[in-house]
Amino acid sequence: MKALVYHGPGNKAWEDVPDPKIVDPTDAIVRIDATTICGTDLHILKGDVPAVARGRILGHEGVGTITQIGDAVGRLAVGDRVIVSCITSCGACSYCRQQLPAHCLDEEGAVGIGWIFGHLIDGTQAEYVRVPFAENSLHRIPAGVSDEAAVMLSDILPTGFEIGVRNGRVKPGDVVAVIGAGPVGLSAMMTAGLYGASRVIAIDLDDNRLGQARTFGATDAVNNARTSWRDEVRAMTDGLGVDVAIEAVGVPQTFDMCTEIVRPGGTVANVGVHGKPVELKLQDLWIKDIAITTGLVSTTTTPMLLKLVAQKKLPAERFATHWFKLDEMMEAYDTFARAAETKALKVVITR
Amino acid sequence: MKALVYHGPGNKAWEDVPDPKIVDPTDAIVRIDATTICGTDLHILKGDVPAVARGRILGHEGVGTITQIGDAVGRLAVGDRVIVSCITSCGACSYCRQQLPAHCLDEEGAVGIGWIFGHLIDGTQAEYVRVPFAENSLHRIPAGVSDEAAVMLSDILPTGFEIGVRNGRVKPGDVVAVIGAGPVGLSAMMTAGLYGASRVIAIDLDDNRLGQARTFGATDAVNNARTSWRDEVRAMTDGLGVDVAIEAVGVPQTFDMCTEIVRPGGTVANVGVHGKPVELKLQDLWIKDIAITTGLVSTTTTPMLLKLVAQKKLPAERFATHWFKLDEMMEAYDTFARAAETKALKVVITR
Amino acid sequence: MKALVYHGPGNKAWEDVPDPKIVDPTDAIVRIDATTICGTDLHILKGDVPAVARGRILGHEGVGTITQIGDAVGRLAVGDRVIVSCITSCGACSYCRQQLPAHCLDEEGAVGIGWIFGHLIDGTQAEYVRVPFAENSLHRIPAGVSDEAAVMLSDILPTGFEIGVRNGRVKPGDVVAVIGAGPVGLSAMMTAGLYGASRVIAIDLDDNRLGQARTFGATDAVNNARTSWRDEVRAMTDGLGVDVAIEAVGVPQTFDMCTEIVRPGGTVANVGVHGKPVELKLQDLWIKDIAITTGLVSTTTTPMLLKLVAQKKLPAERFATHWFKLDEMMEAYDTFARAAETKALKVVITR
Amino acid sequence: MKALVYHGPGNKAWEDVPDPKIVDPTDAIVRIDATTICGTDLHILKGDVPAVARGRILGHEGVGTITQIGDAVGRLAVGDRVIVSCITSCGACSYCRQQLPAHCLDEEGAVGIGWIFGHLIDGTQAEYVRVPFAENSLHRIPAGVSDEAAVMLSDILPTGFEIGVRNGRVKPGDVVAVIGAGPVGLSAMMTAGLYGASRVIAIDLDDNRLGQARTFGATDAVNNARTSWRDEVRAMTDGLGVDVAIEAVGVPQTFDMCTEIVRPGGTVANVGVHGKPVELKLQDLWIKDIAITTGLVSTTTTPMLLKLVAQKKLPAERFATHWFKLDEMMEAYDTFARAAETKALKVVITR
Repeated sequence: MKALVYHGPGNKAWEDVPDPKIVDPTDAIVRIDATTICGTDLHILKGDVPAVARGRILGHEGVGTITQIGDAVGRLAVGDRVIVSCITSCGACSYCRQQLPAHCLDEEGAVGIGWIFGHLIDGTQAEYVRVPFAENSLHRIPAGVSDEAAVMLSDILPTGFEIGVRNGRVKPGDVVAVIGAGPVGLSAMMTAGLYGASRVIAIDLDDNRLGQARTFGATDAVNNARTSWRDEVRAMTDGLGVDVAIEAVGVPQTFDMCTEIVRPGGTVANVGVHGKPVELKLQDLWIKDIAITTGLVSTTTTPMLLKLVAQKKLPAERFATHWFKLDEMMEAYDTFARAAETKALKVVITR
Repeated sequence: MKALVYHGPGNKAWEDVPDPKIVDPTDAIVRIDATTICGTDLHILKGDVPAVARGRILGHEGVGTITQIGDAVGRLAVGDRVIVSCITSCGACSYCRQQLPAHCLDEEGAVGIGWIFGHLIDGTQAEYVRVPFAENSLHRIPAGVSDEAAVMLSDILPTGFEIGVRNGRVKPGDVVAVIGAGPVGLSAMMTAGLYGASRVIAIDLDDNRLGQARTFGATDAVNNARTSWRDEVRAMTDGLGVDVAIEAVGVPQTFDMCTEIVRPGGTVANVGVHGKPVELKLQDLWIKDIAITTGLVSTTTTPMLLKLVAQKKLPAERFATHWFKLDEMMEAYDTFARAAETKALKVVITR
Repeated sequence: MKALVYHGPGNKAWEDVPDPKIVDPTDAIVRIDATTICGTDLHILKGDVPAVARGRILGHEGVGTITQIGDAVGRLAVGDRVIVSCITSCGACSYCRQQLPAHCLDEEGAVGIGWIFGHLIDGTQAEYVRVPFAENSLHRIPAGVSDEAAVMLSDILPTGFEIGVRNGRVKPGDVVAVIGAGPVGLSAMMTAGLYGASRVIAIDLDDNRLGQARTFGATDAVNNARTSWRDEVRAMTDGLGVDVAIEAVGVPQTFDMCTEIVRPGGTVANVGVHGKPVELKLQDLWIKDIAITTGLVSTTTTPMLLKLVAQKKLPAERFATHWFKLDEMMEAYDTFARAAETKALKVVITR
Repeated sequence: MKALVYHGPGNKAWEDVPDPKIVDPTDAIVRIDATTICGTDLHILKGDVPAVARGRILGHEGVGTITQIGDAVGRLAVGDRVIVSCITSCGACSYCRQQLPAHCLDEEGAVGIGWIFGHLIDGTQAEYVRVPFAENSLHRIPAGVSDEAAVMLSDILPTGFEIGVRNGRVKPGDVVAVIGAGPVGLSAMMTAGLYGASRVIAIDLDDNRLGQARTFGATDAVNNARTSWRDEVRAMTDGLGVDVAIEAVGVPQTFDMCTEIVRPGGTVANVGVHGKPVELKLQDLWIKDIAITTGLVSTTTTPMLLKLVAQKKLPAERFATHWFKLDEMMEAYDTFARAAETKALKVVITR
C-alpha cells in the first residue's frame, strides 16, 4: 500500500510500504476512507518529537472501513465504518479503567501513553492501518454522519471539549474565554455550550480568525493586539474576570493572559502544546482560589460527541476547509503547513 | 484595653487603645480568651503586606466570649464561647453564597477579601475585638473543647484541610505527599485521612520536624536533603508518583518538587504563601493531566472540623507548644519568630 | 393596603389590611409591581396545608420596588427593582451555608423551612410585602428584564432547573424525559439544555400541551395515553431508557412511569408535590444503579438564571398567558384555577 | 474436577463435572484456592433466580491461581495469584467504559449484567473456573494478603463500599447509620471511615450482632426492637437526622426506617436485595431534598480496597468465621444457611 513515511527531520514521502497485518487477537485492520493532518504532525516533521523513529507512518486521525479483525474482537465486524480514535486504550490498565487512557500503561505497568498512532506505531496517513485494542479504540459511525464530520472526532473535537471545556469545569451561566482561534480553540468554543456557558469570548490576534470564531460558537471576540483587551474582556463579565480561561495556543504569553483574566474561584484550562516553561505568578495567584489544568485528550467523550454530531447539534464538518485525495498527501501537507496563508483549518484527505 | 499595635515595619507594641464598639447591627464584641500568632503576622511586621496601616491591631485567630451583640444578631448571645474565624463572611455576596467567603465582595461588588482581621480592620491580639457579620464569622464552641484546641480552628486547621486536602481532591486509597512540616503542612497531614489517604508522606529538610510529623498523621517521612528523595517517594507509590502533592512552604523550589512527584492525573495543591513567581515546566506538564490549585481558606469546613475536634478525632491541641499570657505578647512574638530554635509550632496566648 | 387574605378552606378575599412594617434590621419592604399564582396557592385554599393560618396573606412570587430597608441592609437600597424569591434565607444557619436554604433552620436550630411567604408569614399577593433577610432573599433586576419575565424567577424557573435538571444530574448528550407539561415541567424543559441534553422528551396526556412543550425546549413529544408510549420513549434512546426522568405532576402513576423508563445508571428527579405514597418497585430497582431525588427549590441558581434571562437566552416571559391588575386578583385566581379550560400557564398580576 | 452443581430448587450436589476450557482468547482458567458462599447462592437454591439453569455450577466469589490463559491475555500470566471478581467486565461497552460494569452490555448492546458467575455461566464453587475477559475481571494479589482476606474482595467489601458508602455520598464529618449488621452491612461500616464519617451507627434487632458491629467500625449501636430507637439515633446527630442511611437488609420495614431517620439533604443508599415493593412516603419526602440510590456492585474499587487490605488498614479477614475444605462444600452450605444459629458471617472454603 501507499503511506506517508517519516524519514527524519524535514523529510517525508508518500511511498510504497507493506500492508499492515493482524498481530494481536485484539487488533483490527482499517481501510482509511479519510484522514487529516494535525499540528503535531508538523512538529514531528521538524524533529521535535524524538520518540518518532525514521520509517514511521505518520497520522493519528482517520475514518475508515474495517477489513479484518482479530480473534478476540467480538463487538466489531468487517465492513463496519469506524472512527479511528487518536488514543488507543487497552481497557484494562488502571488509567484506562479510570477513564484516562491518555496515560494507558504498558504491560509492565510503567508510564505509558495512549497516543501511539504515527508516534510509536504506524499511523493513519496511509491506505490501511492496524488498530490495536480495536474494541476500545474504534467507534462505529451511525448512518448520516459524513466522513469529513467523523474525522474531526478522532482528535480535535474531543480535545477541545475534554481538555478545554470539561477540565475547565464550565457550568451553566459561565463566561468562558478561549485564547487562540485555531482548530482546537474553535473546538472548545463549539462545545462550551454543552455546559451552558452564557458567553464564549474568542481572543486572538487575527481579526479574520475572530470573525470565523463567531460561526463556531463564540458570542464575543476580542483582539488582544489592542492594549485595552483586558478591560474589554472584564467588561463582558461582572468586572471580576472570566469563570474559565482556555489556553489554546501553547506559548508563555497566552498562558499568562489566562491567569490575568480569570476570576477568583475560576479555572485556567491549558490545551496548548508547550515547548518551554512559563513563569507562573504565584505571588499573585496563591490567594486566588484558581485551578490550572493540563492534559492530553482521552477521547472518552467521543461516543457522546458523535451522537450530537449525528443529531446535527455539533456541525463538526465545518472544520474542513480543503479537500485532497490520498495520493495528493504531499500537497495536503503543503496547504496545511501554510495555514496562515491558505486559511486552512483542517484538510480532509480521502480515498 | 490593651492590644498589639503595628507601628510600621519592625515596630510593634502591646499598648493601651480604646475599647471596640458595635458599629453595625450585625456586629458582636468578643472578649479574647486565647489568641495565637500566624506566620502572616511576621510578614506584616516585615512590611510585606502594605495594606496594613500603621496603628492597626494585629491578629486573625482567637477564641473568646461574646460581651455585646448588635440588633441584627439573633443566633448568638452574650456569654457564648466562640471561635473567631480568620475569614469574615457577609453571607450575602455571590462569593459567600457559593461558599467562597475568602473572596467576599465589598458592598459595591468589587473584588474583596474575607481576611480582614489584623489586616483591614483591628484584629484579635487584644483584650477585645469587634467582629462584623458575627453570625457568619463566629462559631459556638461545644463543651469539652479547650481554648487551645479551638483556637487552631480559626485558621490553621481549616487551611490545611480546605486548601491542601480538599483542593487536592484526596480520595480513598490515595498517596499524599506534604512538602513542609510546619503548622500548615501538619494540618494537612492531620486531616488527609478524612478522605481516606492510604499513605501520607511528610517531606522536609529537618529530621526533627519529620519525626514530629509522624505524630500528626504522616505515615512516612522523606528528607529532601538526600539526593535520592524523589526515588524514595516514588517507591512509596506504584512507581508513577503521588496522587496529591501539597505545597506548604511557599518557595519556588518546593512548588517545583510537587510538580516532579505528582503522577499523571494527580493534583498539586498549593497552600504556601509565595513572594515570587515560579517557573512552571509546561513543556513537560501540558500532557500530564494534572490540576494545580491555589487558595486562601474560606473556613466553611470549620463547623465540621470542630465537631471532629469535640469527638477527639482530631487532636487540634497538639499544635500548641508554648503558652503565654496576653501581657506577655511581646515574648510570645519573640518565641514564635525564633521557631527554628524554640521548636515552636503554635504559641497560645491566654487571658 | 389591599391584599388577598385566606379565610379558611374555600374562602379568600381581596381586602384592606394594615401596611407591613420593618420588624428586624435585616428586613425590607417591597411594593409589589407584579405577582402571580402558584398551584400551591390552590392547595392552600383547599385546606391541604394546615400550617397556613386564617388571616394569612397568600403568595410567594413577586417582583417589586424597595420602599424601605432595615438598619442592617447595606447591599440594597430604596428604589431598587427586585425579585422576591419564594425562599427566604437567613444566610447563617448550616443549611443556608451549604446552599440549601429550602431547609433554613429556625433560631433554635430546629427543622425549619425556607418557604415562609404566604405560608408562615404574609405573602406577595398584596400591594406591599415585608421581606426578612432581605439581602439573601431579594435579587436586583438588571435593566431590560421585564416584570413578567422576572416574576418567573421567584419560583417556577429555579424549581424546574434545580429540582428537575440539576438534581437529575443531566449531562452533555443525555436524553431527558419530562413527565407533565405544566409550568414546572416546562421550566425543566427550558433549562435542560444548560447541561447539554441531546433530547428533551415531553410526556403528557394532552396533545395541546405537548405542542406547546415544543416551544419551551422539548425536542420530542409522547402522549402517554397511547399504550405504546414506553416503546416510543425507548426508541428515542439507544434502547436502554432515558438518562434522566423528571416527574412534574405529583401522582403515583407518573412517578411510576419515571422508574419504568429510566436506564440503568440513570436518575429519577421528582419535582411534583405528592399527596400520597407511591409503590416503589424495589424488587426490580435494587439492582438498577439509579438515584431518585426529591426537593424543594433553594433558589440558589436564581442569579445565574436571571443572567441568562437578561441575555435573552431563556425566554422566561413565555410562561405568561394571562394578565390582570392587582384589584382583579379574584378573577386572576378564577382563570388560573380553571387552567385546563383557560389554557393558563401563569397569570401575571400587576399594579 | 469437582464442583457444586445446582439441580433445581432445593437441590445441589458436590459432584464430578468436566474441567473448564479456554473458549475465547480473552479467557483465563483459574484453579480455586479459596471460595465462599453468598446469601444470593441461598436465594438461587430456593429457586428465586429463574435465570440460573439446572446444571449450573454456583459461586461468584473466589481467589485462585491462573493455570491457563487465552492468546489475548497479555497482562496476566500462568501462576499469578488472583481475586476472581464477582463482576465480569468486557472493558469495551458503554457501561464498562463509564465504570459501571455491573450493567455490562452483551455484544448486541442489549441490557446485560456483569454478574455472570454462578448465574449465567459456571461459577467459582469448583476446583477450576473459566474467567471471561480475564484482564478486566481478575486482580493480582500482592504478597502478604491471605486468601481469606482476598476472597472478601470478590464481592462483599466492594459492595458495602460502592453501593453503601460511595453511593451514599458519605463525606467528612457525616453521621452514617447502617441498618442491618450482616456481612454487607458490616462492610459498609468497615469502609465508612474512608470518607471521614464521624459516627457510624449500627442498627439491628440482635444485640450479639450489634456487639460484633463495634469491632467492624461501628462507633454506636442501636437495637431497633426498642420503641425509642428513632430518638436514640436522632440524639446521636444534631437532632435533624443522619446524613446517610444505608439499607443492608432487603425488606420494606428497614427501607422505611432509612427514610425516617435521614435528614433533609441526606441520602438513603439501598444495598439490600429486595423481593417486593416498598411504600415510599412521597407525601413527606417530596420536599425533603433526599437522594435514594440503588445498585449492584461494579467492583471498580477493588484495586483500591485491595491496596488498603495489603496495608492492613482494612481487616478483611475478620469476616471469616468458619473454615472448610472444598470437599466439605455441603457442610459449608449447611453452616452458612444456619447463620443465625452458627453465627457465621462468611465461610471460607479452601483447597
